[in-house]
Amino acid sequence: MPVSAAFASDNAAPAHPAVLEALTRANTGPVPSYGDDDITAQAAAALREAFDSPDADVLYAYTGTAANIIALSSAVQPWHEILCSDIAHVLIDEAGGPVRLSGAQLTWLPSADGIIGIDELDRRVSSRDPVHHSQPRIVTITQSTENGRVWSAPVIKEFVDHAHDLGLLVHVDGARVANAVAAQQVAPIDAVGDADIVTVGGTKNGLMFGDAILVRRPEHFPGIGFVQKQIGHLASKHRYVAAQFLALLSDDLWLRGAGHANAMASALGRGLEGLGFSLASPVEANEVFVRLDPLAIERLSQSYQVHQPDHGEPVWRLVCSWATTQDEVDDVLATLG
Amino acid sequence: MPVSAAFASDNAAPAHPAVLEALTRANTGPVPSYGDDDITAQAAAALREAFDSPDADVLYAYTGTAANIIALSSAVQPWHEILCSDIAHVLIDEAGGPVRLSGAQLTWLPSADGIIGIDELDRRVSSRDPVHHSQPRIVTITQSTENGRVWSAPVIKEFVDHAHDLGLLVHVDGARVANAVAAQQVAPIDAVGDADIVTVGGTKNGLMFGDAILVRRPEHFPGIGFVQKQIGHLASKHRYVAAQFLALLSDDLWLRGAGHANAMASALGRGLEGLGFSLASPVEANEVFVRLDPLAIERLSQSYQVHQPDHGEPVWRLVCSWATTQDEVDDVLATLG
Amino acid sequence: MPVSAAFASDNAAPAHPAVLEALTRANTGPVPSYGDDDITAQAAAALREAFDSPDADVLYAYTGTAANIIALSSAVQPWHEILCSDIAHVLIDEAGGPVRLSGAQLTWLPSADGIIGIDELDRRVSSRDPVHHSQPRIVTITQSTENGRVWSAPVIKEFVDHAHDLGLLVHVDGARVANAVAAQQVAPIDAVGDADIVTVGGTKNGLMFGDAILVRRPEHFPGIGFVQKQIGHLASKHRYVAAQFLALLSDDLWLRGAGHANAMASALGRGLEGLGFSLASPVEANEVFVRLDPLAIERLSQSYQVHQPDHGEPVWRLVCSWATTQDEVDDVLATLG
Amino acid sequence: MPVSAAFASDNAAPAHPAVLEALTRANTGPVPSYGDDDITAQAAAALREAFDSPDADVLYAYTGTAANIIALSSAVQPWHEILCSDIAHVLIDEAGGPVRLSGAQLTWLPSADGIIGIDELDRRVSSRDPVHHSQPRIVTITQSTENGRVWSAPVIKEFVDHAHDLGLLVHVDGARVANAVAAQQVAPIDAVGDADIVTVGGTKNGLMFGDAILVRRPEHFPGIGFVQKQIGHLASKHRYVAAQFLALLSDDLWLRGAGHANAMASALGRGLEGLGFSLASPVEANEVFVRLDPLAIERLSQSYQVHQPDHGEPVWRLVCSWATTQDEVDDVLATLG
Repeated sequence: MPVSAAFASDNAAPAHPAVLEALTRANTGPVPSYGDDDITAQAAAALREAFDSPDADVLYAYTGTAANIIALSSAVQPWHEILCSDIAHVLIDEAGGPVRLSGAQLTWLPSADGIIGIDELDRRVSSRDPVHHSQPRIVTITQSTENGRVWSAPVIKEFVDHAHDLGLLVHVDGARVANAVAAQQVAPIDAVGDADIVTVGGTKNGLMFGDAILVRRPEHFPGIGFVQKQIGHLASKHRYVAAQFLALLSDDLWLRGAGHANAMASALGRGLEGLGFSLASPVEANEVFVRLDPLAIERLSQSYQVHQPDHGEPVWRLVCSWATTQDEVDDVLATLG
Repeated sequence: MPVSAAFASDNAAPAHPAVLEALTRANTGPVPSYGDDDITAQAAAALREAFDSPDADVLYAYTGTAANIIALSSAVQPWHEILCSDIAHVLIDEAGGPVRLSGAQLTWLPSADGIIGIDELDRRVSSRDPVHHSQPRIVTITQSTENGRVWSAPVIKEFVDHAHDLGLLVHVDGARVANAVAAQQVAPIDAVGDADIVTVGGTKNGLMFGDAILVRRPEHFPGIGFVQKQIGHLASKHRYVAAQFLALLSDDLWLRGAGHANAMASALGRGLEGLGFSLASPVEANEVFVRLDPLAIERLSQSYQVHQPDHGEPVWRLVCSWATTQDEVDDVLATLG
Repeated sequence: MPVSAAFASDNAAPAHPAVLEALTRANTGPVPSYGDDDITAQAAAALREAFDSPDADVLYAYTGTAANIIALSSAVQPWHEILCSDIAHVLIDEAGGPVRLSGAQLTWLPSADGIIGIDELDRRVSSRDPVHHSQPRIVTITQSTENGRVWSAPVIKEFVDHAHDLGLLVHVDGARVANAVAAQQVAPIDAVGDADIVTVGGTKNGLMFGDAILVRRPEHFPGIGFVQKQIGHLASKHRYVAAQFLALLSDDLWLRGAGHANAMASALGRGLEGLGFSLASPVEANEVFVRLDPLAIERLSQSYQVHQPDHGEPVWRLVCSWATTQDEVDDVLATLG
Repeated sequence: MPVSAAFASDNAAPAHPAVLEALTRANTGPVPSYGDDDITAQAAAALREAFDSPDADVLYAYTGTAANIIALSSAVQPWHEILCSDIAHVLIDEAGGPVRLSGAQLTWLPSADGIIGIDELDRRVSSRDPVHHSQPRIVTITQSTENGRVWSAPVIKEFVDHAHDLGLLVHVDGARVANAVAAQQVAPIDAVGDADIVTVGGTKNGLMFGDAILVRRPEHFPGIGFVQKQIGHLASKHRYVAAQFLALLSDDLWLRGAGHANAMASALGRGLEGLGFSLASPVEANEVFVRLDPLAIERLSQSYQVHQPDHGEPVWRLVCSWATTQDEVDDVLATLG
């Protein structure tokens, strides 16, 4: 039996059948290119409505990495500074792309599993002098975080408002924002606070490809359309990404899938604890971080791909998706039991 | 009746049914991400075989613009110079992306509809001194060209070999390379000469999305995988772009579609000439450039989107695709007759 | 006898004795760094007065190349386009620095020895569409030009005003602006029109080092101080560059030196024509471009360094400076006579 | 009495009289530009000899910031990572210039006043995977450090050798390297270990302007001459920077000046401790970091400019230079006594 990728990442899952159906329906033609089509208009309306942001602009990118880079690099000048957490995807897992594109320094702040305290913002912003120091301009946070934690609605509201008070813009990397919404059962907007720009994940939540960029305050990102084009993310056959988002947002498919993934992760986490393993972070969304001894990881690896985020730490990550089954969860527990 | 996009561009066409079927077949899971899957391996083998390039690396990008940028910017340092033709897509229609990413100067050479003479290379390369001048490093040419012309096999061979003699690398922007192959009925490799890196168009030839990068001499592009990642074109659900290319290369679908597009363009061009309109460039692939008087363009625009490449010239472009029908061609001619 | 650099460039000349005296006088201490000193304030006032620009900001750079790069790259975003002439120093002799720093495409327009017609601006600006095309934002012209020509006051006024009407900013590369002022005997401001930013040459006109940047419309260059710092041109011991400019602007030393250089070039040009050599450009400032046959250039090279701007053309450049003597001019003519 | 800049920074001091004399002697002409002159050749030889590095290339930059940026950005590709300490000048005081120019991520490691342990290198390098992570390529350390500490010869030797073992290049920011040499009374090469490239400070040690770049392993910095040119630090009147370095290196002027500065700092530090103030870092070179209460800093500020490195900490910096006098030291102590 080959090693399964079921828990390697939520991007190992296939596209949801409803997404494939939407692509099939959209596959007529000819249709005007670069977004001048009906499906694109409908998807944009659906995203604005989902996030209660009637004045937002909507763009798409092929990947979440691209969505983050387009958002951040259109917010800054090369003498600005981008603030992030010490475990941010933009810092660690994008090969330096945000720095390359923006030319701006990327400065990480201490965090609790990706949750940054407002005092860290205060400290950073207060000690910067013009000309000699680069200038903090935007802070990016991840919802849910890279360690599977969720910013609660009141905490993210306070953080975003405080950042605004300090003159900072706020970007939410929402590659897994649906998981954070589903976990809290709040309105989507409450999961991102009053953020200026939000990456809305699609690839990790049932699409073939595509993440959206919700530009809630377009006046702060005047060149974003150019940046998207300049790095090759303005699709000519634009309907194919829009159609997927339209399907995802219909009938709350995005939240149902995310809720299922969360439930599977929760079951997996409880099960692992029941077997005596300790979790490195609380399971609040769809990711489980568990400490495994050498024997356990050897056994697990014979059946499942798992990711070790930091080679220096004996912690492994298991990710659940809309497609994860209870059987797969049970099998992991049986393998380790 | 709405205005039709049938001749607006070859990217207005839908995906070919065989491509959609391939996506449907590929939609199982879980599958390891980032290209560590069977479909990716098969598609790479198919591309290498199609271009008789067993040692080539294969990467994909979401769009042709991205493929060009990844190829060019991984070839140069910021003190190098990229040479192109005066009508090159990389110069005009990529919003300056190749310059932004590479930091290198983009220098255009005079051309005949995108076909550059080898004497232009000689002139440019001979007059550059180190340190004060940026250094020519790579020349990019487009096959078939932005004006719908085809580099014949002997001409492109001589050009590429001469560029190599001058110490230059060669990139072929093959967004429409299939049209050039089909037009000449040569082996694909003969349509790109001994180029070091080739963008192989998919989006304009029946895919939903995706262009390939065939890295024929990987030693000259050591960081290309990082560049692809840094600008967000390394797909996590990699099989979905690979599956499309696999379908396209099966049973010569790519060349049959391109050949059909060429035949439609040829018929359209002849028909327009028969109506007394003059062509601005010979029709050698799937694009027709025709001079239209104000009355004619007004009439045509009521039924068809058409593109005017240069606002200062009364020349319009009509593009045919794998999906263009004889009825559509006839209707254009009837509209203008 | 060693080969003389007297005509190799105006940067072969030493610093004017008055400049050395000023440096000696300034050499007391301690003095606050980064421009917070009296000499800096006086020099800025002198530059503002010389160019009748009371609201201008004044910065310095180590070299003219740096001054140009700082000016241009603080005017643009990476999706903008910088327009220049086909012989511009920023295009040819700065190793691609303006492109590297700005990330913006550098587009050259046809010119007569560096003098660009306003119709060329019209043509370029009218044909640009958003998102797919980079957007023209600033045009840079050189006064006096790289071929030794002078923009007359009415011509530069019309050009700058027209560029403004088209929504473009204007930069004047004034590495040799003093020569253009002296040649026309106009007020300095009339030699640069209503330009938004001007590089005022020092190195080529009697300083040890240093070119100034006169930011006539600071609102269009909000980050210029950061750019200057970021590429290492904000001097800590700031008084030493300011003191030189203060000396240069005192008693019209800059215009007297430039006028002398112009007179020497004029005499040299006339003498060369008298010997039967033809000039490639009219001598309007301090540079002479002369066609030389192989025998003549061989003879001249035994005594003088001379620069051949384009290796494909039998044209050589001889540059005069504040320090050029009539004896040196006579000796060149005797050598070639 | 105006506030004195005597302790604000070592760049508040004037140029050493011997440097001014050298400039005066060099001020003859014409002389070939861009370094093709005798003084440049002699200065390069002197620098190679001083650092026992016969195969090194020597370049200059206008400022130390520029020297650092040129060195670092010519060592890396945009997917590389530059490692530095948490108090590095390149991280904090260069307005993000090293990131802008290189496009590479700048990652700081914990340190003791700028001294980084080799275990920090191990940890960072071991946890990086290709493509998704940017790749550590060079580590930059500062000698003496930004907090006035000195890397001892054995410690820097071990660090540099270890970095090399890990496949890293090493840059030494030697803006104050003379102070570190003088402090230890070792050969200059022993103060920088087997570093691949060294910034040798001039501006802070008695020059009018100019820092040198000693490229000890030119094969790792193939484009450094282009980078220098591209950001405007290749001086046309090159002799004027070279002449200053030649003077500085003659008769050990650089080490005598630095030794004097160190002695003054030492006396100042002891005096402050004698007055009951505590030092934030040991005084090992020419900088004193002292904790001052509000009353003390208010009194001191009436007579002396002093710098507070971190606005959140009640620590002030006093810097001594070759020009600092015992009287000035005594006066500070009297002011605070």
